[in-house]
Amino acid sequence: MKIVIDGFGGDNAPDEVLKGAALAVDKLGIEVLITGEVDTLKSRMQALGVPEKGITLVPAEGVITTEDNPLSVVKQKNNTSMGVAFNLLSEGKAQAAISAGSTAAIVVGGTTIEKRIKGVKKAALVPLMPCSGGKRYCVLDGGANLYCTAEMLQQFAIMGSCFMEATMGIKNPRVGLLNIGTEDEKGRELEHETKALLEKTPINFVGYVEAREVPLGAVDVLITDGFTGNVFLKTCEGMGALMKDALKGMFFANLKTKIGALCVKKQLGEFSAQMDYKTIGGSPLLGTAKPVFKAHGSSDAVAFLGAFRQAKLFVENNAIEKMTEAISKLKTEEVTENG
Amino acid sequence: MKIVIDGFGGDNAPDEVLKGAALAVDKLGIEVLITGEVDTLKSRMQALGVPEKGITLVPAEGVITTEDNPLSVVKQKNNTSMGVAFNLLSEGKAQAAISAGSTAAIVVGGTTIEKRIKGVKKAALVPLMPCSGGKRYCVLDGGANLYCTAEMLQQFAIMGSCFMEATMGIKNPRVGLLNIGTEDEKGRELEHETKALLEKTPINFVGYVEAREVPLGAVDVLITDGFTGNVFLKTCEGMGALMKDALKGMFFANLKTKIGALCVKKQLGEFSAQMDYKTIGGSPLLGTAKPVFKAHGSSDAVAFLGAFRQAKLFVENNAIEKMTEAISKLKTEEVTENG
Repeated sequence: MKIVIDGFGGDNAPDEVLKGAALAVDKLGIEVLITGEVDTLKSRMQALGVPEKGITLVPAEGVITTEDNPLSVVKQKNNTSMGVAFNLLSEGKAQAAISAGSTAAIVVGGTTIEKRIKGVKKAALVPLMPCSGGKRYCVLDGGANLYCTAEMLQQFAIMGSCFMEATMGIKNPRVGLLNIGTEDEKGRELEHETKALLEKTPINFVGYVEAREVPLGAVDVLITDGFTGNVFLKTCEGMGALMKDALKGMFFANLKTKIGALCVKKQLGEFSAQMDYKTIGGSPLLGTAKPVFKAHGSSDAVAFLGAFRQAKLFVENNAIEKMTEAISKLKTEEVTENG
Repeated sequence: MKIVIDGFGGDNAPDEVLKGAALAVDKLGIEVLITGEVDTLKSRMQALGVPEKGITLVPAEGVITTEDNPLSVVKQKNNTSMGVAFNLLSEGKAQAAISAGSTAAIVVGGTTIEKRIKGVKKAALVPLMPCSGGKRYCVLDGGANLYCTAEMLQQFAIMGSCFMEATMGIKNPRVGLLNIGTEDEKGRELEHETKALLEKTPINFVGYVEAREVPLGAVDVLITDGFTGNVFLKTCEGMGALMKDALKGMFFANLKTKIGALCVKKQLGEFSAQMDYKTIGGSPLLGTAKPVFKAHGSSDAVAFLGAFRQAKLFVENNAIEKMTEAISKLKTEEVTENG
């Protein structure tokens, strides 16, 4: 399997990309294509002692930054490290693409250079969030589409379900619709319409779910509109930061508490790792006809390895074929119903 | 000052209500009216050793439960402990009312038996949330009004601002509008329209605020529609529960970690108290022409004391007069502008 990665995307590129690619070749048995200025990549590989085995460098010029218009990845900047990565994917020279570069450019590039799955109205970038017991759940929409229709959310539910099964190894992922209560009458028109659709969708729909249950692991796939989803994600982040500050203040108060910190050091480290994006690596862009993964901007080699692992599992388990089939069936059923 | 409390509202009524009332008489120097079955109240006062000083019992029959239709508080059940409390407030026999009973009934009773402030479109029940540094901020709307207009949110901003200044002692409270980014173009139509209104409202409007900044103390008053507000509040709650579980698992792992727990016991207790609703006591129902406070359903005597303290400060600092004036000015300005 060949996976292409944007060699200059992310805060720690190209060094951590190169080290992550070497790890992926070694541990996952894949081949990696790395895009970017070949001279720089070569000299950094030598300096870092990254072996050439399994790695192919593909020339590209410059980098898309977060300051660039995201559309430039498909127009004047399609020869950048990100643009070339998408082109290689599009031409079939790689089976999946990864970038830790500008999120907006990845979404634009992923949905413009690559085609969408037939019938899919909108693609969504899908964050994976930590919850109780060291598990993960995904959120669609996490912010790309502020206004969603029930039909969009139905497709998101199918895509999220396929992704969690294929990549995260969760059988029959529990799909929940975010709402302010679990009673039928709770929520807005959007929730009522979406619930009616999800009840007749071939997924494991568990109904409405309240936000307080989600971090405790109530669902594997959380469905909501992009505005609410983004607020939800950022609230989780803010509360995490509040707790981190509080723990720091608690353990650094005096000598006694510092001794306390030493006693739980191992457990603190484990919890911190569990809450860390690095153990996962990437967020898939779901809805595109070919697999695109966004790695966190501050990814290190281990985080990139995580993204490679996700992309590999995604391809191996035919996630896109499964989504395509489920969504085409949906359309057939609708046609049958209406006809 | 006389404050009336629903003697049978809440999980721990009437005992904790009675003890809380005695604390309020003693520590706040107020008089308390307690509604309910007088024989029961009297015998519980004797059993608990609650002194009669400053406490007046007012007869009422039965209790509104969460199973009751909330409208019953104004109709067939207006002689219940909650109904009588609202009537006493309405008749001017008390200057503020408190209940730990059914939230829905309090909202209905508070906005039906009591009148709304002139010009106020909707009342809102306003939760106070803990943030960094042991401080509190309030959220409007927290869930009462799923669909809000920009005009409603403008009134909420004024009411929240007056409340935080009068009751929480915060000068020039920072009012933020919840959004998915701070750039002008971010958000939905509702955020754009509301921002335009808030910019010409005489409050300390700090602009858009992202959910991740709120638990870290970025604002004193958080403005958003009721659906988003409720999701925000419940996400905070869920993340708090996740962290609590994680801490428990961390400290109870083995003997060494249990020793660690002993070393930070004091700090853990302080943090836990800081995150606890009991140190605050009540949520105001803002928008009514007379002060109504909802105490937490599981309030104990200390929590009730907190609610009495809030109500007293609210009355003493003329919060309702200030809201009424600010909202009437708003109308005048609008008329002037349009004329």
